[in-house]
Amino acid sequence: MSQHDAIEPAAESVSSETVRRRLREHDLALPTPWQLPAGVKIPASFVRVVGTRAFVSGHVPIAPDGSIADRAGRVGEGIDLPTAQQAAVEALLGVIASVERAVGDLERVRAWCRLWGMVNAANGFVDFPAVFNPASQLLVDLFGEAIGTHARVAVGLTGLPWNAPVEIEAELELHPATG
Amino acid sequence: MSQHDAIEPAAESVSSETVRRRLREHDLALPTPWQLPAGVKIPASFVRVVGTRAFVSGHVPIAPDGSIADRAGRVGEGIDLPTAQQAAVEALLGVIASVERAVGDLERVRAWCRLWGMVNAANGFVDFPAVFNPASQLLVDLFGEAIGTHARVAVGLTGLPWNAPVEIEAELELHPATG
Amino acid sequence: MSQHDAIEPAAESVSSETVRRRLREHDLALPTPWQLPAGVKIPASFVRVVGTRAFVSGHVPIAPDGSIADRAGRVGEGIDLPTAQQAAVEALLGVIASVERAVGDLERVRAWCRLWGMVNAANGFVDFPAVFNPASQLLVDLFGEAIGTHARVAVGLTGLPWNAPVEIEAELELHPATG
Repeated sequence: MSQHDAIEPAAESVSSETVRRRLREHDLALPTPWQLPAGVKIPASFVRVVGTRAFVSGHVPIAPDGSIADRAGRVGEGIDLPTAQQAAVEALLGVIASVERAVGDLERVRAWCRLWGMVNAANGFVDFPAVFNPASQLLVDLFGEAIGTHARVAVGLTGLPWNAPVEIEAELELHPATG
Repeated sequence: MSQHDAIEPAAESVSSETVRRRLREHDLALPTPWQLPAGVKIPASFVRVVGTRAFVSGHVPIAPDGSIADRAGRVGEGIDLPTAQQAAVEALLGVIASVERAVGDLERVRAWCRLWGMVNAANGFVDFPAVFNPASQLLVDLFGEAIGTHARVAVGLTGLPWNAPVEIEAELELHPATG
Repeated sequence: MSQHDAIEPAAESVSSETVRRRLREHDLALPTPWQLPAGVKIPASFVRVVGTRAFVSGHVPIAPDGSIADRAGRVGEGIDLPTAQQAAVEALLGVIASVERAVGDLERVRAWCRLWGMVNAANGFVDFPAVFNPASQLLVDLFGEAIGTHARVAVGLTGLPWNAPVEIEAELELHPATG
């Protein structure tokens, strides 16, 4: 696959069951959907569904129980590249869990349109694509190229909520709801 | 309302008159749509309408007369959290004013899809969600949950135009134009 | 043209041939579509087409041969405003080349919806709109106002991949594919 290959979403779909099985083959699992810390209320949706479009709020890395992963710090300072890559995968798994919760079953996903990968970056760190490559590859592994391929941004920011090392925002296209 | 509640836009709509009345109940008002400083020309649109989608350019806080609000500085340095929250509300009001100007009446708005909240952040400031929570809550108060709920990003950047403390970019879904 | 003028895309279209002719009149040309450095593989698409929407990954400035332009550095430190403006044009040309490669001929482009302009910014640099104004104007010159007008963000980040001075991400609306 080249970055220039035109991959249009096809009619196929990949069920939650298939995604969970493929995750097990990677020794991974979806977390419980994100729970905000006690007392924190955000008047926004983790996933906003408008017709066949789904807009995903920025997700920091999530622990298996749905709490914010205990991984605060800047990439290039306290957080090294392998840890940042793992954090990006945890953020992506949180995104997938929120999408599943919002749409019922992941077979509703017609295409991942774009991922915005943000790094809480120390001055001088520039290897942003490397931080998100394992997460991007995982998305393609889980959903296949036709659904999982996505446009991407991978950049460095001054700060992220809860001093998280990375954050992922995303947009998806859904199959129309039936019934 | 939980962040995981699936809130799909309904057929209802909320008119400009209703939005303005609700703003008065909050002791707020829409500003004059944003006017750039004399001599500044930007070859882009404040709101780009493509079919039923509206893309809103990044908006800094706007004063009632449509000029850029006199509030330059970094959040966590010269600008404290309450001031940043007020600035975020002023940016959101500027966004709403530009949308109204672009679409005629706010009853055209079917759904707020996403808000991107950006903070001109001092090193060490991380409470980005708190900066935009009052603005997000106001949007839901003004338009109701079905229309006003949105996905959100709230992150810290190195700098914003005119050294503004915050900036908001947004995407909306519109009802089709009639006539 | 005012930033508040409502410019809806019309039925017209502008072919690749016309875009290339207009570029020659500006003493510019499209680069070879972006080639990543040897050994760098990114499991994402430069342009993700989903139905009539095209999502463009973040593009750094591209040299005529498709390699990453040799222009690393921070705007406001090693990179001055005119150089940053030229880099933004080179990033935009790379975006257009990737879009052409993805859709076949630029006559498929119905509307440029939004450009996200990101600056690798030194502390204290705030003139982000100026960095992207020549690129935004060029887009309108090449495609005309009905197609080329766009919403825009122009902000400063801590870091960009390959320490590039600027990066542009974009979304477009396409005419439906025929045949």
